[in-house]
Amino acid sequence: MERYDIAIIGTGPAGLEAAITARIRNKKIILFGNKNLSLKVEKAHTIQNYLGLPDIGGEELKAAYEAHLKAMDIEITEDKINAVYAMGEYFALQGNGTNYEAQTVILATGVSTAKAYPGEEQFLGRGVSYCATCDAPLYRGKIAAIIGFSPKEEAEADFMAEMADKVYYIPMYEADVNVADSVEVLREKPVSVEGSLKVQELVTDRNRYDVDGVFFLRESVSPAQLVPGLKIEDNHIAVDRQMRTNLAGCFACGDAVGAPYQYIKSAGEGNVAALSAVAYLAEKKRLSK
Amino acid sequence: MERYDIAIIGTGPAGLEAAITARIRNKKIILFGNKNLSLKVEKAHTIQNYLGLPDIGGEELKAAYEAHLKAMDIEITEDKINAVYAMGEYFALQGNGTNYEAQTVILATGVSTAKAYPGEEQFLGRGVSYCATCDAPLYRGKIAAIIGFSPKEEAEADFMAEMADKVYYIPMYEADVNVADSVEVLREKPVSVEGSLKVQELVTDRNRYDVDGVFFLRESVSPAQLVPGLKIEDNHIAVDRQMRTNLAGCFACGDAVGAPYQYIKSAGEGNVAALSAVAYLAEKKRLSK
Ligand SMILES: Cc1cc2nc3c(=O)[nH]c(=O)nc-3n(C[C@H](O)[C@H](O)[C@H](O)COP(=O)(O)OP(=O)(O)OC[C@H]3O[C@@H](n4cnc5c(N)ncnc54)[C@H](O)[C@@H]3O)c2cc1C
Ligand SMILES: Cc1cc2nc3c(=O)[nH]c(=O)nc-3n(C[C@H](O)[C@H](O)[C@H](O)COP(=O)(O)OP(=O)(O)OC[C@H]3O[C@@H](n4cnc5c(N)ncnc54)[C@H](O)[C@@H]3O)c2cc1C
Repeated sequence: MERYDIAIIGTGPAGLEAAITARIRNKKIILFGNKNLSLKVEKAHTIQNYLGLPDIGGEELKAAYEAHLKAMDIEITEDKINAVYAMGEYFALQGNGTNYEAQTVILATGVSTAKAYPGEEQFLGRGVSYCATCDAPLYRGKIAAIIGFSPKEEAEADFMAEMADKVYYIPMYEADVNVADSVEVLREKPVSVEGSLKVQELVTDRNRYDVDGVFFLRESVSPAQLVPGLKIEDNHIAVDRQMRTNLAGCFACGDAVGAPYQYIKSAGEGNVAALSAVAYLAEKKRLSK
Repeated sequence: MERYDIAIIGTGPAGLEAAITARIRNKKIILFGNKNLSLKVEKAHTIQNYLGLPDIGGEELKAAYEAHLKAMDIEITEDKINAVYAMGEYFALQGNGTNYEAQTVILATGVSTAKAYPGEEQFLGRGVSYCATCDAPLYRGKIAAIIGFSPKEEAEADFMAEMADKVYYIPMYEADVNVADSVEVLREKPVSVEGSLKVQELVTDRNRYDVDGVFFLRESVSPAQLVPGLKIEDNHIAVDRQMRTNLAGCFACGDAVGAPYQYIKSAGEGNVAALSAVAYLAEKKRLSK
């Protein structure tokens, strides 16, 4: 498998600046996120505090970012990373269906507002998961509940239904649901995940369902869920002034590491995170000689 | 005397972003530096890593910064701050001839490369000084040596000569020197400042001179000299992730707080420093009620 020098997760200002800085340093990078960059960039009305771009609209800022990516020939890999595992010599990244490897990782995933449901963290890896595509093969002959936070998760429910005996789908949005006939759609509110050694029940505001697994398919995964072992402080990834996390080779920047939530602060931290990753790679190379 | 909410020292990206952020928050600010902003901006060839402004020249970046200041109606006060004193309730700032007061201070002075001469720090305030204009009145009937790092300091020597009994001027540059006849120009290298309780001698590579005071007039003052009591670590101002220094109400950002030396990192930190100053002012107001 191709092993990248630096994998960057997130296409807001933090991840983009990290990518640009790493590219200037001739590193082999892969940048995960959306072709639309970040909703938080696109949706802003007028931005007054991005030094050098006075009074700019969100759409314009996005265009300026896109021009920069183009000028530097940086591609975005449109995949959501569901888990990052520190393997010692490298990191293994689990996308929606594809896996990746990188020597270092920069987390630029933005602030995560999702609160975990009771039982969610407790049963993570023991029936609770964030990627249906990844785990579907494990559900042959079993019962899965999929909690979808956007209509695009409906495809995940359909795919799961090809493997599992039974699939419940709980849409967390108003729009009509369009899934395979074999999927049972529940218009109920999830309350908690219960079990003993592993998941046994999904409890909603109306019922209890016997299940073997519960999938929470949110737009974003919280950093603690994304990277097992990552140190979190006050709900944010703990970093030092060089943007180093507690895991060697793993760096973080932007809203994900704490307030103030601001574009230029995020970009500045992305720059530092990338240079720290570059320094880490150089040191690793030196030591291996 | 007018008391500002926030005094910002430095017109590189760190100070400019701090000024913009503070202005958006409706704070009464004063921004010290140069109308030319920063040599480190102006002199750059091409800059590739300032997200949103791909492949921009130093002159262009400077123009973009100027446009931003103009859009926000921010003036630059062209004065060099020689000392900042924490007075408890506020800070007293000593310019070249003018004094200022502010509730909070943001140090965005860039990296300082000057190394102190032996004796310089030891005798600071006891014969060593960084502002001839400020201290000239104390030198009636005395002997002063002025070490000028740029031709513009010649005017300081002339002014001192109107007060002091004797003035030596040591130019630290090649260009011809043009000072009053009463000023003795020494083409020698300063070696150290000596004395017991206060300055008694300036030692050069050729001679020893009896003096009452030695003035080092450099482009920039090191942070430790600028702000007595400021905590320095590895030659940089020590700050936490909120850009707070060890002195309450005093913040710092940009190259002054450490590597990497980069525009967007400096600007990002300027943004954080300003928001921390705003939060500090709010808390102070709350407590005084
Ligand atoms: C309406 C609005 C107006 C604002 N106005 C201003 C303003 O005027 N000035 C200002 O300074 N700030 C403003 N902000 C704040 C600013 O938007 C944020 O601080 C900034 O976007 C944070 O940048 P970031 O790179 O850390 O994260 P984000 O911009 O949130 O980007 C994170 C990216 O990572 C992606 N991602 C997350 N997890 C994964 C994963 N597991 N796999 C793949 N991709 C992932 C997300 O989809 C997203 O694209 C505003 C915010 C909003 C919402
Ligand atoms: C030739 C060159 C090319 C560079 N290229 C790049 C690049 O491509 N990308 C990149 O990211 N970085 C680059 N850098 C680095 C970048 O210039 C610095 O990191 C950045 O300018 C630091 O910003 P700052 O605001 O902290 O300080 P500075 O830009 O150094 O500004 C400090 C300002 O404070 C003023 N000042 C200091 N003391 C006082 C005082 N006591 N009273 C009043 N005013 C004071 C100074 O006169 C100056 O105007 C380059 C630097 C140079 C020299």
